Amino acid sequence: MYWSKLFIPTLREDPADAEVASHRLLLRAGYIRQLSAGIYNYLFLAQRSILKITQIVREEMDAIGGQEMLLPALNPAEVWKESGRWEGMGQNMFRLKDRWGHDLCLGMTHEEIMTYIARGELRSYKQLPQIWYQIQTKFRDEPRPKSGLLRVRQFIMKDAYSFDLAPEGLDKSYDAHAVAYRKIFTRCGLDFIEVEADSGAMGGSQSQEFMVASAAGEDFVVRCRATGYAANLEKAVSRPVPPAQPDPEGDAPEEIHTPGQKTIAEVAAFLSLPETSLIKSVVVVTDDNRPFLVLLRGDHQLSETKFNSAVGAKEHRAAHPDEIREWFQADPGSLGPVGVTKLKVLTDKALEGRQNMVSGANRNDYHLKNVTPGRDFMAEYHDLRQVVSGDTELETGAALDVVKTVEIGHIFKLGYRYSKSMGLNVLTESGEEKAVIMGSYGIGIERILCAAFELYNDKDGVSLPASIAPFALVLTVTNLKDEALLAAGNDLYAQAKAAGIDVLMDDRDERPGVKFKDADLIGIPWRINIGKKVAQGLVEVVERRTKEMVEKPLAEAIAYVADRLRG
Amino acid sequence: MYWSKLFIPTLREDPADAEVASHRLLLRAGYIRQLSAGIYNYLFLAQRSILKITQIVREEMDAIGGQEMLLPALNPAEVWKESGRWEGMGQNMFRLKDRWGHDLCLGMTHEEIMTYIARGELRSYKQLPQIWYQIQTKFRDEPRPKSGLLRVRQFIMKDAYSFDLAPEGLDKSYDAHAVAYRKIFTRCGLDFIEVEADSGAMGGSQSQEFMVASAAGEDFVVRCRATGYAANLEKAVSRPVPPAQPDPEGDAPEEIHTPGQKTIAEVAAFLSLPETSLIKSVVVVTDDNRPFLVLLRGDHQLSETKFNSAVGAKEHRAAHPDEIREWFQADPGSLGPVGVTKLKVLTDKALEGRQNMVSGANRNDYHLKNVTPGRDFMAEYHDLRQVVSGDTELETGAALDVVKTVEIGHIFKLGYRYSKSMGLNVLTESGEEKAVIMGSYGIGIERILCAAFELYNDKDGVSLPASIAPFALVLTVTNLKDEALLAAGNDLYAQAKAAGIDVLMDDRDERPGVKFKDADLIGIPWRINIGKKVAQGLVEVVERRTKEMVEKPLAEAIAYVADRLRG
Repeated sequence: MYWSKLFIPTLREDPADAEVASHRLLLRAGYIRQLSAGIYNYLFLAQRSILKITQIVREEMDAIGGQEMLLPALNPAEVWKESGRWEGMGQNMFRLKDRWGHDLCLGMTHEEIMTYIARGELRSYKQLPQIWYQIQTKFRDEPRPKSGLLRVRQFIMKDAYSFDLAPEGLDKSYDAHAVAYRKIFTRCGLDFIEVEADSGAMGGSQSQEFMVASAAGEDFVVRCRATGYAANLEKAVSRPVPPAQPDPEGDAPEEIHTPGQKTIAEVAAFLSLPETSLIKSVVVVTDDNRPFLVLLRGDHQLSETKFNSAVGAKEHRAAHPDEIREWFQADPGSLGPVGVTKLKVLTDKALEGRQNMVSGANRNDYHLKNVTPGRDFMAEYHDLRQVVSGDTELETGAALDVVKTVEIGHIFKLGYRYSKSMGLNVLTESGEEKAVIMGSYGIGIERILCAAFELYNDKDGVSLPASIAPFALVLTVTNLKDEALLAAGNDLYAQAKAAGIDVLMDDRDERPGVKFKDADLIGIPWRINIGKKVAQGLVEVVERRTKEMVEKPLAEAIAYVADRLRG
Repeated sequence: MYWSKLFIPTLREDPADAEVASHRLLLRAGYIRQLSAGIYNYLFLAQRSILKITQIVREEMDAIGGQEMLLPALNPAEVWKESGRWEGMGQNMFRLKDRWGHDLCLGMTHEEIMTYIARGELRSYKQLPQIWYQIQTKFRDEPRPKSGLLRVRQFIMKDAYSFDLAPEGLDKSYDAHAVAYRKIFTRCGLDFIEVEADSGAMGGSQSQEFMVASAAGEDFVVRCRATGYAANLEKAVSRPVPPAQPDPEGDAPEEIHTPGQKTIAEVAAFLSLPETSLIKSVVVVTDDNRPFLVLLRGDHQLSETKFNSAVGAKEHRAAHPDEIREWFQADPGSLGPVGVTKLKVLTDKALEGRQNMVSGANRNDYHLKNVTPGRDFMAEYHDLRQVVSGDTELETGAALDVVKTVEIGHIFKLGYRYSKSMGLNVLTESGEEKAVIMGSYGIGIERILCAAFELYNDKDGVSLPASIAPFALVLTVTNLKDEALLAAGNDLYAQAKAAGIDVLMDDRDERPGVKFKDADLIGIPWRINIGKKVAQGLVEVVERRTKEMVEKPLAEAIAYVADRLRG
């Protein structure tokens, strides 16, 4: 294609209201324009990338036997009421009425509709397994639309659903999706992280997220570059960084006056001790009304998920001030484990083996020194803390990082959640009715594009993987009035087309600097500069990501790029 | 692919509630299932065809320089209010509110949003022309959802918009779309009809529809198979079928008593005359309150469009009984032109040269015979009638047909309707602000699939064009237990794949009759039966549409099909 005829509205300046890299650059490089909060127009470049992403997703889903369908965005309320999610989705679901006053919603996901179809058509175990998917627009009345395409009210999902007779079948379908997802994200050129996820509100049994590191992310993931270990921050395990200072000798707890010093940071500073020498006391109450005192090393945070799992609770809350006063005869800021009898004490494993630490004294404005777990209070050890960067992997000792991430895919064992609530059964070989076991598997199409923008940007713009870039190669004729250059450009264009390279000819009547800047901004992975050296039969081939430039003879330039594109 | 693993829920019986061929067969062949009134799930086969149709549309739009975008379905009210269509679309538009109470709608078309984008980005004549398109889901709160996918509440449109500096540019963009549309519908294998359309409510200057003959249609088109002439029934012109009986001799009008005979049919029967010997009187009043008596041959109908155009009216209505009584001193059923002075008389050209006909006498229960236009009343001739089957083309005399049709595409010169109401201007070469002239161009994606089902069905199912069929070839192994047959089938499958043919292997454990029936039902254009004759090295190749069967050596069968597929 010829750039002079295309609509690529690049901006010279960063847009004022875009903080996140992908948002800023998608706007500036002319990929998208906002229509309303969380609602975007995808212009030529964005749609071109989206079509490439979509095709990769489609090919890999087809490769695992997925059958593509297309379900309506407009859903009748009745089907959502069957699963209980008509109410459950609350304000996140867009709802409307038709001209007859019937309730409709805009689909946020399609478990209900897929189960509805399956219920109407699947009768026998012989028809299983099935994997059905679609690549389709979803709607969500997002409470905080922001960050460009990362948090929107309308977006494209690949959503797939598996139907199996037995858990072993579901395992196979689930594993097949994991394999397909790895291929998809690899083909899209993304450096992704796989994490076991919390099954959470969807009520299934196993779940895994595919994430990409991004400052725009809102999920924290712990990962080890060396071993490939990765886990959700709430579930990750580690060996803690050793204490900053060895524990002192000492016999028994001893009160020290700490007037007005309440936080860990205040007490540590007041006593000239590192935070690792302090015991943090957290008081929580479970949903079934059991109170706990949780002890952590001063520099650690409680993992909500680990705590719930340790005590077998669904949820918990912070204790109220009056509850704390009743149980401790002191206020937050002076709490500690010594002498506590009214609630159970749980101690994080990072405190195991430590001695003569500092905790609150259960007397306002006082702390205790020489507090030793197991000697001065009953210590029941659990892994209760969140990993922090610098912790090491349990088995290998390799360093762990905590990174902010955005989710690009999610696979999920639904189990019988929908088949049982909506009555999806088949007859088994022995003629009995049996509920079908299901999985659900999602990929955010625009998320892949955003992730590439988040991962591969620099001061000049973005550098997209060739597989999802709107074009793989741009030919920049530096001076259109020089007929020799133009002829060389047209010749290279024809060669690139013949080689099956998705090529863009920058035939705009602009200065070379403007052309180079625009090409770098919009992220085309390869550029050939057709300039003065054509007289010597040479052109410059530039790789966008590395900015590396090599001179190549005219006759070899396309073959060189084709070779590099193959990988 | 292997049929045994696919979800193709064919039905043995016609569904009860589906009258239209495409509706009945899309359900029966397992392409679609209804979710709600006018809302359908597209299953595997439908989506496979839709992807092929979409790709053909995309290629031909790209070929005329169209740039693909993707605009949101969720539209803020503000943009629609600018064009005045927030009110104008009335109940046909789905409307909703978001969590903050803002008004949104679901896009029925995207003139407003495209104009909004263009207004924000196009500044100079140098950026023109542009053709922007998308292939995207539209919503319409259809008052009468019916006929399967022909009248639905959610559907996929290819909608394109052109932006030009001057009318000559628009002419070029419009013509380019006409060319692209012909290629698209031809590649999709449709026998289509092009007609000049009424620009109607959209207020543009020129418009053309692409139609397909279908009993399910609601638009009437006049066409001539011999010459290719085609026009909307309201605009078509013709030479009428000659009168069934020659006109008699006679001198002057003469009253005859016709007690209780009011309609043309009644009077003709009472007088033993053909309807072609009668003058039909129609009394109408224009929107600017001008009354007219329109005269037609007894067997003809008034064309509303032709009448409006002849008198320069936007609309008209039938006269009220009291108006008729005041103007004629008689009631409908006895009206005629002789002696009429209170309103203007328009005479259809089919009455030119006729004499001594029968009309109403303007006296209840009486008619006049011997009424001759131009002698007995002032005859001002216009073409005012609808064409009927049997009329002939004006210039060639070739026979015309009136056919029911469904629309598959529409191209439209919008003019300045949106650029002026929404303020889309560019600077001209001389530095003046000038409104951009626009066109809009639509194709109904599912309509193409439906049209193929409407055109190419028979008692056994549908026979789809290979370009849009879910598969081009099905291999039917008649007995899976016969290893020689299975091996031959697998070999042909590999050959077909290698030849780039989209092939389906029917490996289901079913009787041959069931397999043949299903293949015929779902419309795969070519079938190879792998049966007993494999022992002699032969297979049967069957063309779905003609049912013609030829025997071919195993080694030649795929080449034969590939050759026929190339056309």
